[in-house]
Amino acid sequence: MTLGRLNHVGIATPSIETSIALYRDLLGATKIHDPFDLPAQGVRVCFVDMPNSQIELIEPLGEASPLHGFLARNPAGGQHHICFEVPDIHAAKAEMEAKGAKVLGEPRIGAHGTPVIFVHPKNMGGVLVELMETPKGAH
Amino acid sequence: MTLGRLNHVGIATPSIETSIALYRDLLGATKIHDPFDLPAQGVRVCFVDMPNSQIELIEPLGEASPLHGFLARNPAGGQHHICFEVPDIHAAKAEMEAKGAKVLGEPRIGAHGTPVIFVHPKNMGGVLVELMETPKGAH
Repeated sequence: MTLGRLNHVGIATPSIETSIALYRDLLGATKIHDPFDLPAQGVRVCFVDMPNSQIELIEPLGEASPLHGFLARNPAGGQHHICFEVPDIHAAKAEMEAKGAKVLGEPRIGAHGTPVIFVHPKNMGGVLVELMETPKGAH
Repeated sequence: MTLGRLNHVGIATPSIETSIALYRDLLGATKIHDPFDLPAQGVRVCFVDMPNSQIELIEPLGEASPLHGFLARNPAGGQHHICFEVPDIHAAKAEMEAKGAKVLGEPRIGAHGTPVIFVHPKNMGGVLVELMETPKGAH
């Protein structure tokens, strides 16, 4: 596997609306997509574009959201994960596991509509890493 | 100010060598720069390239390194900051302060050789944000 694009940085927030205001009014983000629900992952999502990558704002969706624990530890929000693109998610999962890394669950459809997996932070220097299959025809 | 490129994601680690092995052997990073010391910031630095951005691995340098506190809370390491490019660091500092954000210290030369500032996480949804003047002739 060759490391692909840094697709996005996932940033947890207690309020997507508050975070949108920060990125727009303080940092000058000009392209902010409409927020949407991603029930399979228990998050509400909003992408903020930079010229070369994206910030993914994520807010808890539902009582079982995995973000509740993160926000309990980081009430103001904070960096939650980083996402790299891979050409084939099943090959990536097999390779991660063959190399001894723990993959959290089976591939599922992520915020960009292609399958994703997450690699446990214990195998990645404390960083939760999302691997995302590159959208066909992207870039 | 208009939000510029996501220059890099800063990831703190107790050992750059261990992290290099993870990015190379587990994720398949192919372009890993030589580590170097950045005494002014109390860190040792190593850039790992993606096709569109970079990971900045940072390890404590010296007893006064600001990373010791971070690693005490996150012994395995973790996401430390995100860095966006701006055209003019002094204009960016003035604008941040005019908008009520706390800028940590004066502009100083960062890991890419151009001046940088840091914006306090309390003003950015719990995220430590570095703003970096775009290198002349870059991109």
